[in-house]
Amino acid sequence: MTQAVTHIATSDEKSVTVRGKDLCEELIGERTFTEMIYFLSVGRMPSTAEARVLDACLVTLMEHGWVPTSIVTRLVADSVPDDVQVAMAAGLLSVGPVFAGTMEGCAEILAEGIRSGEDPDVYCKRVAEEYVGTKRPVPGFGHRLHKPDDPRSIKLLRVAEENGLRGRYVDLLLTLSREVDAARGGRHLTINATGMIAALFLEIGIPLKAGRGMAVVSRAGGLLGHVVEEFNEPSARKIWQLTREGIPYSAPEETQA
Amino acid sequence: MTQAVTHIATSDEKSVTVRGKDLCEELIGERTFTEMIYFLSVGRMPSTAEARVLDACLVTLMEHGWVPTSIVTRLVADSVPDDVQVAMAAGLLSVGPVFAGTMEGCAEILAEGIRSGEDPDVYCKRVAEEYVGTKRPVPGFGHRLHKPDDPRSIKLLRVAEENGLRGRYVDLLLTLSREVDAARGGRHLTINATGMIAALFLEIGIPLKAGRGMAVVSRAGGLLGHVVEEFNEPSARKIWQLTREGIPYSAPEETQA
Amino acid sequence: MTQAVTHIATSDEKSVTVRGKDLCEELIGERTFTEMIYFLSVGRMPSTAEARVLDACLVTLMEHGWVPTSIVTRLVADSVPDDVQVAMAAGLLSVGPVFAGTMEGCAEILAEGIRSGEDPDVYCKRVAEEYVGTKRPVPGFGHRLHKPDDPRSIKLLRVAEENGLRGRYVDLLLTLSREVDAARGGRHLTINATGMIAALFLEIGIPLKAGRGMAVVSRAGGLLGHVVEEFNEPSARKIWQLTREGIPYSAPEETQA
Amino acid sequence: MTQAVTHIATSDEKSVTVRGKDLCEELIGERTFTEMIYFLSVGRMPSTAEARVLDACLVTLMEHGWVPTSIVTRLVADSVPDDVQVAMAAGLLSVGPVFAGTMEGCAEILAEGIRSGEDPDVYCKRVAEEYVGTKRPVPGFGHRLHKPDDPRSIKLLRVAEENGLRGRYVDLLLTLSREVDAARGGRHLTINATGMIAALFLEIGIPLKAGRGMAVVSRAGGLLGHVVEEFNEPSARKIWQLTREGIPYSAPEETQA
Repeated sequence: MTQAVTHIATSDEKSVTVRGKDLCEELIGERTFTEMIYFLSVGRMPSTAEARVLDACLVTLMEHGWVPTSIVTRLVADSVPDDVQVAMAAGLLSVGPVFAGTMEGCAEILAEGIRSGEDPDVYCKRVAEEYVGTKRPVPGFGHRLHKPDDPRSIKLLRVAEENGLRGRYVDLLLTLSREVDAARGGRHLTINATGMIAALFLEIGIPLKAGRGMAVVSRAGGLLGHVVEEFNEPSARKIWQLTREGIPYSAPEETQA
Repeated sequence: MTQAVTHIATSDEKSVTVRGKDLCEELIGERTFTEMIYFLSVGRMPSTAEARVLDACLVTLMEHGWVPTSIVTRLVADSVPDDVQVAMAAGLLSVGPVFAGTMEGCAEILAEGIRSGEDPDVYCKRVAEEYVGTKRPVPGFGHRLHKPDDPRSIKLLRVAEENGLRGRYVDLLLTLSREVDAARGGRHLTINATGMIAALFLEIGIPLKAGRGMAVVSRAGGLLGHVVEEFNEPSARKIWQLTREGIPYSAPEETQA
Repeated sequence: MTQAVTHIATSDEKSVTVRGKDLCEELIGERTFTEMIYFLSVGRMPSTAEARVLDACLVTLMEHGWVPTSIVTRLVADSVPDDVQVAMAAGLLSVGPVFAGTMEGCAEILAEGIRSGEDPDVYCKRVAEEYVGTKRPVPGFGHRLHKPDDPRSIKLLRVAEENGLRGRYVDLLLTLSREVDAARGGRHLTINATGMIAALFLEIGIPLKAGRGMAVVSRAGGLLGHVVEEFNEPSARKIWQLTREGIPYSAPEETQA
Repeated sequence: MTQAVTHIATSDEKSVTVRGKDLCEELIGERTFTEMIYFLSVGRMPSTAEARVLDACLVTLMEHGWVPTSIVTRLVADSVPDDVQVAMAAGLLSVGPVFAGTMEGCAEILAEGIRSGEDPDVYCKRVAEEYVGTKRPVPGFGHRLHKPDDPRSIKLLRVAEENGLRGRYVDLLLTLSREVDAARGGRHLTINATGMIAALFLEIGIPLKAGRGMAVVSRAGGLLGHVVEEFNEPSARKIWQLTREGIPYSAPEETQA
């Protein structure tokens, strides 16, 4: 079997080394947690502008109130109160294709558009018409609640611009937005937060496969807040009661042996 | 049943609110991810000094090379490659009492020492003699590899001092360290990273129950690096092979019906 | 480092061996799943009577309708629909100390009573008065809904008797029940299902530490039913909606920096 | 919002009802755990023959010695020793597309073959040539170790025949096997255990989506054995040591900011 190696970390009596850097001399107290997340997943330290944009994305993804992720964490925190990592991990399991998948779908469209070298207007028109024509949701567009525009996307765009990181992926997303509206006969559909974050992750060089992982790290921070609140002002038993009362039993119809 | 409420988040057409603050106006682009983690678990924004110390702690806890957490994540990433949240959550499940528990044990000793109002020297002498006398490991002390001192604790102490956050909990830990050495007849035992972080979390007001959750958030960042490396330079199959070859089968001895 | 070995399984070109037995010749088609669960956790094959009692216990623990375990599984199945193991594992995480702990607490009382060799009446009177006197719930007793008696305990007792497995642990539990009622001034409190199962697991030689694991295996079977129902008649989105509507946001009171 | 209901379970003071049956009168002590697993996922009780075949499949899937599933469970059991559900759930997370996927892929081929009504010989020839021609592994065929034949498939086939459950899906699998060998120029490739189980699940009416869930329930039983062994004869620390020593650190090459 071929050898396997790791480039992540090693340590000896006097020091710890993380990806070639001395943990105590170069990282602790010298770099923020956000810079380190970038460093460990991209392999180089971010510029100040890249770190600011990543911070903005992580802050955006942290918290969405009552969603499956937070409901699951609250229920498990009530069942396993002394091991909070269990409740947090249970919640993180639901950061899956249904909710995080739109970010990945949007990133793939943008990456393909740049990779192909095709004229952006032509590419976006074709993609928009394809999705709208087949009535499939365009990944990264639309929001259940936020209308006409998702305020998070607008703010994220501003952060990118202020940091000089509005580049070709963001521009392609804005072109796509225009074409989506056109394909819908002028009815506006917002770029949502996951769509804008997909573009920003591409701008700052986050690998496609790491995008969902970034969402996981961010949500872990949000779930910590839910665990703390569950201990102080419990919701789990109420969720349980609401479910019992709101989804009643009815006898199955199937013939049984 | 009494009403349950949440203070964490809500949203409407035009805005998202997180713990009373407007997400788009006051948080995205205005606050770092580290500040938000603090905000969601403590309930107020940290000072600049508190955020720096929290950053230092999170950076310290992120990465330890090959430990159960990272080995588990690598194996699950190989089995479930398209849902990285599964691999990361599996790894986080092992941030349990055995490894994270020493941080909590140390924090309890320090919190109790301050709460009791007892003379620090007397308190620490008693605690040190109790542990050393019964040959139990002192939570937050000692390290398998780092000798004579864990370099991370030294650097963390420096960060706390530079930010004006060396307070009574840190001082109590240093007193305890002196008494542990004395109880061991002068043989020095290092304050390890989890011990120093326990003191720093107390200094900056992290609730005891949130300490392990902080370790979970930090490790999530570290595990993202492992997931990315597993896709580029796999280790999982090698871990599997090493286990197969290194831990052989031998027939059981028990009498069987 | 000392050698580590496993006694569980090995295989070669022609055969698979599980705990010393040939999988294809002695186990597949020759033994039930229940017998195998016993075999793998106890180390010997159960008698017919032991297997029947274990079957009765596993059937009892499988399904409880809407509880945290099933609610969690439904939510995660909706978020990660193509990997049902994720939904099932998420639900199983909540088979923790709060719900499964009463079985373990009851088992410890019974095991200690037999181990001590003390007179059963004296032992049970003391234990009952201790719990009732300090108003702590007696592990394995009482039920939110089933009154005056948990019908599952009554049936499980009958199954044990019919299979000749009503032994000293069951008798001790019945004595304890009498003493609990006496300590409560004659107000009857039922032995619940987890209490009777604790006694039955001891009768058939399941190690204390394996008891919760048995509950996990049994619940895994129950959760499979929930996953299948979620795909055919979804409840997850309704649980989400009930939570959103039933647990509203209110602004936090704390002063914020 | 439309109403949601569940057909799984309900209870009142005197009884528990599971899918329309009285738990205490009709199920506990009357049905095996295997029958109940079938009942909860298929919606009707199995015949004796169906239960025997399901037992054979569950026994086959339980245990594979050192695989990611069991390695993960051992590591987490060492980190979180008092909550065995955490270790078992962590291991179950890896019952994913890579390992369980071949069962699903094979089931889809067989289901499609029957659904299409195409001549079995023609269908199997086409499928076999497609896979072999494009050098893709045929789902349900081949085994790393077992040659020329996987002994589990042979035994499972015998169990099906003895119980009168060798039907059209099994026959189609055997036809496919002949055509796979033919497409490989006569070089024999075994039907493996997951392939034969795919056919048997179809014969006994297990829904396609429930197949992986069956594997999860079965593996839960196997992992309980690993948890028990870990407490008695630990392997986790050895796995850790083997990994540390076998997969060394080497400095990363990338240029770093």
